[in-house]
Amino acid sequence: MAAVSIDLEMKRFTNEAFVEKAKKLEGKLIENLVKPAGIVTVDEKGKIHPGAKLEDLPGMLLKKGDSVVLDFEDHQVGYVSLKLKSAGSPQDAPAYLRLKFGEIAKELIEKSEEYNGWISRGWIQEEYIHIDVLPVCLKLPRRYAFRFLEIYVVDTSLKYQVVVEEVVCRAVSAVSKEGVACVADPRMSQLDKVSLRTLQNCMQSVFEDGPKRDRRLWLGDLRLQALTNYETFKNYDMVKRCLYLFGGLTRDDGAIGACLFTEPEYIVDDTFLFDYSLFFISTLKDYYEASKDLETLKDLWQPAYRQIELARERFNDNYIIEGSDTFWCFVDWKKGLDKQASAQAIYIYTLNAAIELAKILGKEELAKQLQEEKGYCISAALKYLWDEKLHVFISGAKRQVSYASQVWMVLAGVKKDQEAGALLKHITEINPDMGMVTPYMNHHYVEALILCGEKKMAVDYMKYYWGGMLSYGADTFWELYNPENPEESPYGSSAVNSYCHAWSCTPAYLLRKLEKEEKTNGISCN
Amino acid sequence: MAAVSIDLEMKRFTNEAFVEKAKKLEGKLIENLVKPAGIVTVDEKGKIHPGAKLEDLPGMLLKKGDSVVLDFEDHQVGYVSLKLKSAGSPQDAPAYLRLKFGEIAKELIEKSEEYNGWISRGWIQEEYIHIDVLPVCLKLPRRYAFRFLEIYVVDTSLKYQVVVEEVVCRAVSAVSKEGVACVADPRMSQLDKVSLRTLQNCMQSVFEDGPKRDRRLWLGDLRLQALTNYETFKNYDMVKRCLYLFGGLTRDDGAIGACLFTEPEYIVDDTFLFDYSLFFISTLKDYYEASKDLETLKDLWQPAYRQIELARERFNDNYIIEGSDTFWCFVDWKKGLDKQASAQAIYIYTLNAAIELAKILGKEELAKQLQEEKGYCISAALKYLWDEKLHVFISGAKRQVSYASQVWMVLAGVKKDQEAGALLKHITEINPDMGMVTPYMNHHYVEALILCGEKKMAVDYMKYYWGGMLSYGADTFWELYNPENPEESPYGSSAVNSYCHAWSCTPAYLLRKLEKEEKTNGISCN
Repeated sequence: MAAVSIDLEMKRFTNEAFVEKAKKLEGKLIENLVKPAGIVTVDEKGKIHPGAKLEDLPGMLLKKGDSVVLDFEDHQVGYVSLKLKSAGSPQDAPAYLRLKFGEIAKELIEKSEEYNGWISRGWIQEEYIHIDVLPVCLKLPRRYAFRFLEIYVVDTSLKYQVVVEEVVCRAVSAVSKEGVACVADPRMSQLDKVSLRTLQNCMQSVFEDGPKRDRRLWLGDLRLQALTNYETFKNYDMVKRCLYLFGGLTRDDGAIGACLFTEPEYIVDDTFLFDYSLFFISTLKDYYEASKDLETLKDLWQPAYRQIELARERFNDNYIIEGSDTFWCFVDWKKGLDKQASAQAIYIYTLNAAIELAKILGKEELAKQLQEEKGYCISAALKYLWDEKLHVFISGAKRQVSYASQVWMVLAGVKKDQEAGALLKHITEINPDMGMVTPYMNHHYVEALILCGEKKMAVDYMKYYWGGMLSYGADTFWELYNPENPEESPYGSSAVNSYCHAWSCTPAYLLRKLEKEEKTNGISCN
Repeated sequence: MAAVSIDLEMKRFTNEAFVEKAKKLEGKLIENLVKPAGIVTVDEKGKIHPGAKLEDLPGMLLKKGDSVVLDFEDHQVGYVSLKLKSAGSPQDAPAYLRLKFGEIAKELIEKSEEYNGWISRGWIQEEYIHIDVLPVCLKLPRRYAFRFLEIYVVDTSLKYQVVVEEVVCRAVSAVSKEGVACVADPRMSQLDKVSLRTLQNCMQSVFEDGPKRDRRLWLGDLRLQALTNYETFKNYDMVKRCLYLFGGLTRDDGAIGACLFTEPEYIVDDTFLFDYSLFFISTLKDYYEASKDLETLKDLWQPAYRQIELARERFNDNYIIEGSDTFWCFVDWKKGLDKQASAQAIYIYTLNAAIELAKILGKEELAKQLQEEKGYCISAALKYLWDEKLHVFISGAKRQVSYASQVWMVLAGVKKDQEAGALLKHITEINPDMGMVTPYMNHHYVEALILCGEKKMAVDYMKYYWGGMLSYGADTFWELYNPENPEESPYGSSAVNSYCHAWSCTPAYLLRKLEKEEKTNGISCN
């Protein structure tokens, strides 16, 4: 399914003052020069094996068809330079190289010319380069997200070979791991380390959803990145910058976009998702709680509240939301997932945040109205979306049973405490076909478990789910992971999957949340 | 056959003073901004047909799989810039383009991934380019030789399309056609025009053999380019520069290379060809005749004469040259051609030049010795290489009969006047399997005809041979052309053939030579 939204008639509205504030908040990136740590080979299953010694690299004479895979040992985001020279007779023809960057090794064995997914093949990090004159210091102009770099010699000539003298990556991020306290439980340190690396490498000029793809600010990702950031890197300015961008760049009716672009200019996309727009309110609430920055809250309350007004239009007279067949609400990439119940719950969830913010801003009357509305929405959910026989929330005309519906109803507080815990246990036992494929949805499942006090279940699930990615050698957490089908992709090919994805960084947040609740103290990571 | 010479043990000798003189003679390139003249389509046979209107280009929204072929109407050598923007929704993925440059339209339909020739695939003028941010003015860093540019959109995304707003080529050459008088006979003007364009586009920092391939100074090409240049562009400094480079960059025994490189530094290749080394003498003689530059002649006499000394070592006691199975002497790309007789003749041909130069330099004694040696070589040729029964020169142990042997024996003066004319007519009647595939060899055939006074035959042959390329729409003359097999390539694939090749520019020289002999005057080309 091509989940794409296009609205060429859309009119945009820019709040220049907000955008100006956002621009001023752009930070300077921290740079680190990183060299490859070794040479590996990649087998036909995408597994890596030790290759030649790295110190032998400058002595390797690469001719037509030869290749070498450099391993940078950890996930990097940055700009790569290659120092190349020729060996043999004088270079009598252009060298023709293919450079392929892989966040995971499997990307190196996927044939891009066979790619047939519905998102752009342009995301595959592969360059074909002619070099007319060797030696050269080849400074690649694009930024890559990778651990592995394959240098494949398409052709030289019979007279000369290519020699790779040195490869360096100028790695970039807005934040450094220095000073970030790590989790207390050493058994969780790997989960935490990989989460932190994931978030770090997604923090660039803005919070990106993934440095390989889409390299872009999405609201759904931002919300989880911000939560994790408050517990770790504590870069409040970047959250503030992103909030001002979303608040300052809207549709002419005030709708906040699902994502926005920072290049070639700051512009909001023509994609609007019911849940993502509403999450502006939650993200603003979380930001205020972490920063106590009342000025920003005051500034952004109006665009935040506007999302409630716009979302409200989707409800029928029974206070039940009406979905559609289009790409209207995200929730998860699970194919066939009906979003109605989740959307109903997410509206209630964001009403909670809006009520809190209204109170902080002294808008008691509005808070009261919203409280009342929330009551109606909850009642409607229980009346129309709760299946008394099955003891689960159902969604859509076909009364679909999914994890997502239960998780969001719990997070929204439609079911609470023991009832909520029982519901989550019940859905886990049923284990419906409508499961969860993204770490994003899985995060909400764990968060719901924690909310119900099911801490052991939460920790065990993190070990099972994010730990599953670790068992595949993940250096950063992936955009998609289905333990039952690790190669699953919503795009028609895993070649374009992102393997360092913002919405997957939350174990660092969830673990600290659990620790806080247990009142243990962190120890330094460094 | 991979005709490659490699000598990694080779020691080089540099005459710094000569190289310094050469460096100082480097001229400034003349630049012209050229825009496409139209849009065409290319059918499966490589034929072009009118396409959309050029003025509609900025309105064409190119999506995945779309392409457009721009026609620059004439052969260009230069640097290309593309002004690109996006249309539709914001650009949500890198644009991925393939740019393919073709000197002839057929290059655009040849699949480079299927190329399996023995010279480098790197010569195919094709770039795969990711563009992260549109709009962009894409300045391609490499120089291309082309008339056609295909812009093929490998992928965009479902949300946006690529728009080509403008394409410009900054065409470069050391010379301009302004002021070059064209040939008197208007029926020959197209032949002349295409010859001139061929030479013009090969004249860059040095005389290149071909601006697509090898983009390099070869002595065999230089000789013919220089001859044509004296009659047309009259850029004596470039010839002088190239002579000083060859004379200043030799093997440690003084052998002059077949070709040399100007980047990354001035360096002679490790390819040595018997005929090419000797042609340094002919080229020096031609240069002196055209320029009367005695200082250069004095400087370069020693390296020139050294080629005679080295070539002499290949002769046996009977004054007959001994060939070898390796790539030792060029003559032509004709597969299976035995080079013995041609080489014997070329030695005599260059002895003629050496004798003339020795006399100019007052080296009477040496001139006399060379004259004597020439006599022995001619006698030996007539004794051992002339087949009295067949009335042709034969070559090698298998007594091969070829055009090349007869042509070179005539050019060397081994057969003269009517005898020579009869020999050329005879070989043309026999039309042996060992024909001629390069315009280089065909040039020598025509030159030999003119030498024998067979002017009509010469003109008719030019019309047939170079005119044959014109009938295929040539804007510049090709490296290879076999009228009986126009797609022939010595490289295993015509995809890497050069279609603007120095050694093919000589009709402009031959026509003027004929006119001079007829004492007619040229009229201005402009």
